Amino acid sequence: MSRRILGIDPGSRITGFGVIDVVGQERHYVASGCVRTPPGAPLAERIRVLMAGLRDVITTYQPTESAIEQVFVNVNPAATLMLGQARGACIAALVDAGLPVAEYTALQVKQAVVGQGKAPKEQVQFMVVNMLRLSGTPQADAADALAVALAHAGHAGLLAATGGAPRKVRRGRFV
Amino acid sequence: MSRRILGIDPGSRITGFGVIDVVGQERHYVASGCVRTPPGAPLAERIRVLMAGLRDVITTYQPTESAIEQVFVNVNPAATLMLGQARGACIAALVDAGLPVAEYTALQVKQAVVGQGKAPKEQVQFMVVNMLRLSGTPQADAADALAVALAHAGHAGLLAATGGAPRKVRRGRFV
Repeated sequence: MSRRILGIDPGSRITGFGVIDVVGQERHYVASGCVRTPPGAPLAERIRVLMAGLRDVITTYQPTESAIEQVFVNVNPAATLMLGQARGACIAALVDAGLPVAEYTALQVKQAVVGQGKAPKEQVQFMVVNMLRLSGTPQADAADALAVALAHAGHAGLLAATGGAPRKVRRGRFV
Repeated sequence: MSRRILGIDPGSRITGFGVIDVVGQERHYVASGCVRTPPGAPLAERIRVLMAGLRDVITTYQPTESAIEQVFVNVNPAATLMLGQARGACIAALVDAGLPVAEYTALQVKQAVVGQGKAPKEQVQFMVVNMLRLSGTPQADAADALAVALAHAGHAGLLAATGGAPRKVRRGRFV
């Protein structure tokens, strides 16, 4: 039985997405990328573009579930509000498509993908590339979104329950 | 030619809405109320309920345009993020319905409805009741949403252009 997970890394200007298939203990890369909103446009227009972009992704790749990163709570209130608005619009698009939505903090994502919560961003990207056997490193927000999807794949307990044979990935508990 | 304005006062737990008709220089009350989201529920479920509630309002009252309050940027980042998420979901529902979305700060709303930006909340509500000739005071969030709709009605310049004859409203420049 196959699960297809859409991971989202929300941002007020760039929102990353990553789609993976989970087949037993295997994780397969399906797609990733990002939705960029027009910087100078009014908020309503940016939210329209963001939702339209995510809906395109959902229509194209037909995920069965979704996971979204719990955004870093910034010290700048205006930036926090903007990020919250983008995140609210992302979740709106996900629930509208009837997708279950799981939430993970950056700490949880790092723990799941690298094995420890304080891992630098580069190490998360390195693990994403290795776990999904990618030939290159995706754009940063897309890589983060793939990490969220991978965290969710592990969270369902498929790997934890079976242990799993070591794969190409050498570091982290998520092998 | 008639405009029907949906005003929104977004909140993480209670989102107020108010619908008014603008016919020439007249403003008529159509409906108001609030959408409450289940407090203990996951964010995705709360966003689902919020969007469904707003869509019901839009389907029922068929507004031609919308206006939403620019929320107060709180000193508490977690609260600011929550409020941002609710506001993002509201705007998502509005743009999804094809409605133009205008934004007003609380200051702009107070200036439009009361005539000065530092007016207390009670005075805004008093003006809403008077301007729309309501028989009672609406729930606080609904009254705020009606105030946003009234601010938007004035903003389009219909009153500003004509001056308008004094009406029942005694205070404020919005007569």
